[in-house]
Amino acid sequence: MNVAQKLIHAHLLEGEMEPGSEIGLKIDQALLQDATGTLVQLELEAMGLDRAKTKVAVQYVDHNLLQTDFRNADDHLFLHSAAQKFGLWFSRPGNGVSHPVHMQRFGVPGATMVGSDSHTCAAGALGMLAIGTGGLDVAGAIAGQPYFVKMPKIMGVRLTGKLPDWVSAKDVILEMLRRHGVKGGVGKIIEYHGDGLQGLSAMDRHVIANMGAELGATTTVFPSDGETRRYLKSQERESDWVELTADAGCTYDLEDEIVLDELVPLIACPTSPGNVVPVEEVAGKPISQVVIGSSANPGHRDFWIAGAIVKDRLVHPEVSFDINPTSRQLIQNMIESRAFANLIKAGGRFHQSGCMGCIGMGQAPASDTISLRTMPRNFPDRSGTKDDQVYLCSPETAAASALTGKITDPRTLEESYGMSYPQYEAPETEKIHEELLVAPTEHKAEIKLKKGPNIQSLPEMDQLQEAYEVPVLLKMGDNISTDEIMKAGAEVLPFRSNIPEISKFSFTVIDDTFYKRAMQAKEKYGGHVVVAGENYAQGSSREHAAIGPKYLGQVAVIAKDYARIAWQNLINFGILPLEFINPEDYEQIEEGAVIRFSNLKESVRSGNPITVRVLNKNNEVDLPLTHKMTPRQVEILTKGGIINDFREKLAS
Amino acid sequence: MNVAQKLIHAHLLEGEMEPGSEIGLKIDQALLQDATGTLVQLELEAMGLDRAKTKVAVQYVDHNLLQTDFRNADDHLFLHSAAQKFGLWFSRPGNGVSHPVHMQRFGVPGATMVGSDSHTCAAGALGMLAIGTGGLDVAGAIAGQPYFVKMPKIMGVRLTGKLPDWVSAKDVILEMLRRHGVKGGVGKIIEYHGDGLQGLSAMDRHVIANMGAELGATTTVFPSDGETRRYLKSQERESDWVELTADAGCTYDLEDEIVLDELVPLIACPTSPGNVVPVEEVAGKPISQVVIGSSANPGHRDFWIAGAIVKDRLVHPEVSFDINPTSRQLIQNMIESRAFANLIKAGGRFHQSGCMGCIGMGQAPASDTISLRTMPRNFPDRSGTKDDQVYLCSPETAAASALTGKITDPRTLEESYGMSYPQYEAPETEKIHEELLVAPTEHKAEIKLKKGPNIQSLPEMDQLQEAYEVPVLLKMGDNISTDEIMKAGAEVLPFRSNIPEISKFSFTVIDDTFYKRAMQAKEKYGGHVVVAGENYAQGSSREHAAIGPKYLGQVAVIAKDYARIAWQNLINFGILPLEFINPEDYEQIEEGAVIRFSNLKESVRSGNPITVRVLNKNNEVDLPLTHKMTPRQVEILTKGGIINDFREKLAS
Repeated sequence: MNVAQKLIHAHLLEGEMEPGSEIGLKIDQALLQDATGTLVQLELEAMGLDRAKTKVAVQYVDHNLLQTDFRNADDHLFLHSAAQKFGLWFSRPGNGVSHPVHMQRFGVPGATMVGSDSHTCAAGALGMLAIGTGGLDVAGAIAGQPYFVKMPKIMGVRLTGKLPDWVSAKDVILEMLRRHGVKGGVGKIIEYHGDGLQGLSAMDRHVIANMGAELGATTTVFPSDGETRRYLKSQERESDWVELTADAGCTYDLEDEIVLDELVPLIACPTSPGNVVPVEEVAGKPISQVVIGSSANPGHRDFWIAGAIVKDRLVHPEVSFDINPTSRQLIQNMIESRAFANLIKAGGRFHQSGCMGCIGMGQAPASDTISLRTMPRNFPDRSGTKDDQVYLCSPETAAASALTGKITDPRTLEESYGMSYPQYEAPETEKIHEELLVAPTEHKAEIKLKKGPNIQSLPEMDQLQEAYEVPVLLKMGDNISTDEIMKAGAEVLPFRSNIPEISKFSFTVIDDTFYKRAMQAKEKYGGHVVVAGENYAQGSSREHAAIGPKYLGQVAVIAKDYARIAWQNLINFGILPLEFINPEDYEQIEEGAVIRFSNLKESVRSGNPITVRVLNKNNEVDLPLTHKMTPRQVEILTKGGIINDFREKLAS
Repeated sequence: MNVAQKLIHAHLLEGEMEPGSEIGLKIDQALLQDATGTLVQLELEAMGLDRAKTKVAVQYVDHNLLQTDFRNADDHLFLHSAAQKFGLWFSRPGNGVSHPVHMQRFGVPGATMVGSDSHTCAAGALGMLAIGTGGLDVAGAIAGQPYFVKMPKIMGVRLTGKLPDWVSAKDVILEMLRRHGVKGGVGKIIEYHGDGLQGLSAMDRHVIANMGAELGATTTVFPSDGETRRYLKSQERESDWVELTADAGCTYDLEDEIVLDELVPLIACPTSPGNVVPVEEVAGKPISQVVIGSSANPGHRDFWIAGAIVKDRLVHPEVSFDINPTSRQLIQNMIESRAFANLIKAGGRFHQSGCMGCIGMGQAPASDTISLRTMPRNFPDRSGTKDDQVYLCSPETAAASALTGKITDPRTLEESYGMSYPQYEAPETEKIHEELLVAPTEHKAEIKLKKGPNIQSLPEMDQLQEAYEVPVLLKMGDNISTDEIMKAGAEVLPFRSNIPEISKFSFTVIDDTFYKRAMQAKEKYGGHVVVAGENYAQGSSREHAAIGPKYLGQVAVIAKDYARIAWQNLINFGILPLEFINPEDYEQIEEGAVIRFSNLKESVRSGNPITVRVLNKNNEVDLPLTHKMTPRQVEILTKGGIINDFREKLAS
């Protein structure tokens, strides 16, 4: 077996390991961040959970740190109280980004984890099976339920050779995105193997595993080998190490190979992580901002190399050089290695440890200017600036560009600055910082959830009806991201525990009349549908992209196909995820058409085509649709979603 | 002469040094911050300025650093371009809070300075005459005009003895506020003298001078003595030192004395810096946040002592311990002294160098919880949280409270923690950090101002008419602050260069129907007036508190009396600042009354009482009002403000 198969086999509770068939997995660990976690905690409360059943569950606070009013601070107190009530670890605000902190303090080779953050897959760097998913699935796992997912195909990527100077792990994953695009990983686990792994540190592997999310992959796995052991030892956790490697002669469902020596510095152009080209193709464009940080380049090496490149130099006067250390432990190690001082001295602006601009929470770039970031995503508007121009690249490319004030291939520094590639050596032991991790306390029934005025109970979820006649409020193209369905950023995120308020932002990136039209349709027709092309709802795992539209009366989405996490979220919140049987039928539905559904429950349960009548402005047509839900999911959906399902189970 | 008189005498261009009579001063330096500076730069553009006439003028960027959308980032580019165009220094975003940076790099004993920030007076610590004022006055000074102010009374405060352990400079200024209140300094320069000065470092003096703003004082001055020389030497600027001390036997208009040995830890309770009591009176109240930083406690000592108190301990798990280093130079020195590591290790959350929560720009506290801050102000809503409970105190009190989770008199740490008072020794030389200060460039006519879409030209200002019949839209009490007239914070500040938008926030803290009612009154009556009690418009110097209401048609304010800066701002923007001749007449005007003004220009010019007819709901009454404007100011006012005045002068 390969590593992914071994991980699945060891945790298989239900189903067969056949690609495409649903499997139920035992989950060892759970990861929550604050933007999605407030809702998960409200769900745990609604389910009546007593105590977390996972071995380790951690509530991080890394997204909403700015506190421009009471709401974020109130949420922090709420999450702390919920962690105490349900027996979770609590990573206090400012402790750091969930993924690197989890890897430092909690990650264990051979374990499974689900997380309410799409980059949860980063933990695959340690030989974990770590899957980003909707908050409800995480709530279920914390409550001891299996995690259900379709058995993915395993794609083996053989790495050979050694990275050239000025090229680093980020360029490996950008190369994957260049080859396969933002849909290339859908339904797959990416497993890296081969001799090339020897030159990739555990944190390099984190970079690659993290941005597997951008490929749309179910997750990414690396073996647990000697490097994994060295890393855990540096974290004073060598005893957590177990070896986990592929059997000799194992096979993969799909195969690819990257010769590391042949890679060049790469960059993802606006507005998709899949728009990858060699840096030299876009070199010379003037920039106004460089940001170093995020879960996509969180390691000490990533900051050290940027510091070494700008050391004793000054960044370009027109460039805001924003440094976003990913954890407090990292800051302490950066102080020791002088990376901190080098970056400050060269003009770096330091920000508190968290997700910051990666989630549109601060450091938005100026209008009509280019921002270079070591972050994982550059979907439109995600930075907080309308019509932004965000490029994604390695710390080497980012630091080189900060010096020159324009997009710069870092290899050219050898000639222009007479610089040789700085050689990083990892310190044998890191300074460990656990001070802001609050351990689960003894269970105390008297712990009350601290709910500020912006934290509201979840609304009731309507059950599926037999018949609808509802309008198509939006017809969208391919690769619509959850950022477009429900944007993040400082304006929206504070309402994440207040569904009636946050629902007002549904689809506003695409059409700012949507909320008004949806409320009208809810009153007049009892709901609405939306139509989309391929890979609907890619990107972030936020379930508000389902719960917001659900609250506005969304009955169904009709799309060519779906991104995995969002597809599950739709089911979990009772929105029917329909697909065209013939993709070209997409052309048959007009925006504004009315769709007539009848005998819906039976046809959804039967698995036969679901025929709907489309009433366009000047014609009517019957279209055959289908869905990919399992019988288990169909039952959840007809009940109006998983909260109703759980409630029923608890009541019986 | 005393120090204040020497400073004024050396810069006197017009008038006599008689308390209460207007004097015109030559201005050597100008300080701008970004929240007010964008408007100043637009004013300089409107005036057609070629090149700054001051010896040193610096545009700082310290208020609006969060960048949750394009607007703040656009402003930074605009301010940088304006600094280049007009020949100003530019302190780049994240370089630090204006006042400590100015003291480190630019402050010169014996010089005068005006600044568009109410805490400009902090530079009095170095023996400067530094006055916070409206942006228009600063624009005038940069354009080479004298700065006009009424000759203040000089209040000599003799300091004797030595501060006890656990008591520091912040407690000195809190004692002044306890004795004199937020109005106690109005019309006065506070000059500190006496043997007690020997124990106060230059940065201690900065703490005291800075919060002279909270006394309402015109400014605060300290002598330039051996300590001043030592400080400038530590900044590698010893050559900037000149001695400036009071003549033996000099006198003061008013006198006070503080015996330092008798002071105890003090704290200002919500919601005024004047609500000062001993810490022990409010000790034991639970807290959710402690913030160390701001221009009120900006020195290395202030952070070092907090770090020494929490060293090798962990702050209370329910307390967010926010550290806001005031400058990048400070961060570098904190790294060297381990203060940085001590604070991080104990649980401190580090934020970028700037004003942050002091101006409601981040780190707002949770609902219904107490926040302890070393900042200078705690006016209602200023933190960003409605009904906030902000207390102001020394770093000693703040750090002690962070450890215990409740308001704590730091002296009790001796018993509860077995701690002795940490003894600070200033390093002989500091690490100097000038990398983010951009020097004025050679004048280039081709430099264009970079104006993003949110930066709008100034609207036309209406001239004073002969007659009005306008309603009283608000009747307010005493001590209304500019935060209530035009609040700061993340929601409002981004519109500071967009008058039509920012005017919508006028008086919303008091009455959120104000904007709507004002626009209705503008259409129906051609304007409105507001009525207030004593000390109207205390606090921040922001001129948006005048320009916003002016744009909404505010013709006049009728108050018992005014805070100094805001009074000047009203005149500068053409709003008539009237006063009751008989303060009890305040009772004669009802909210909603209509006020009839007639023959207004002549009666304002004459200096005779201005009689207005008040049409209350059930009665009518004539009231005699007056004003304190000089003939020069009357002319500015009748033209609709100083921009129109300048335009006329430039046109002739």
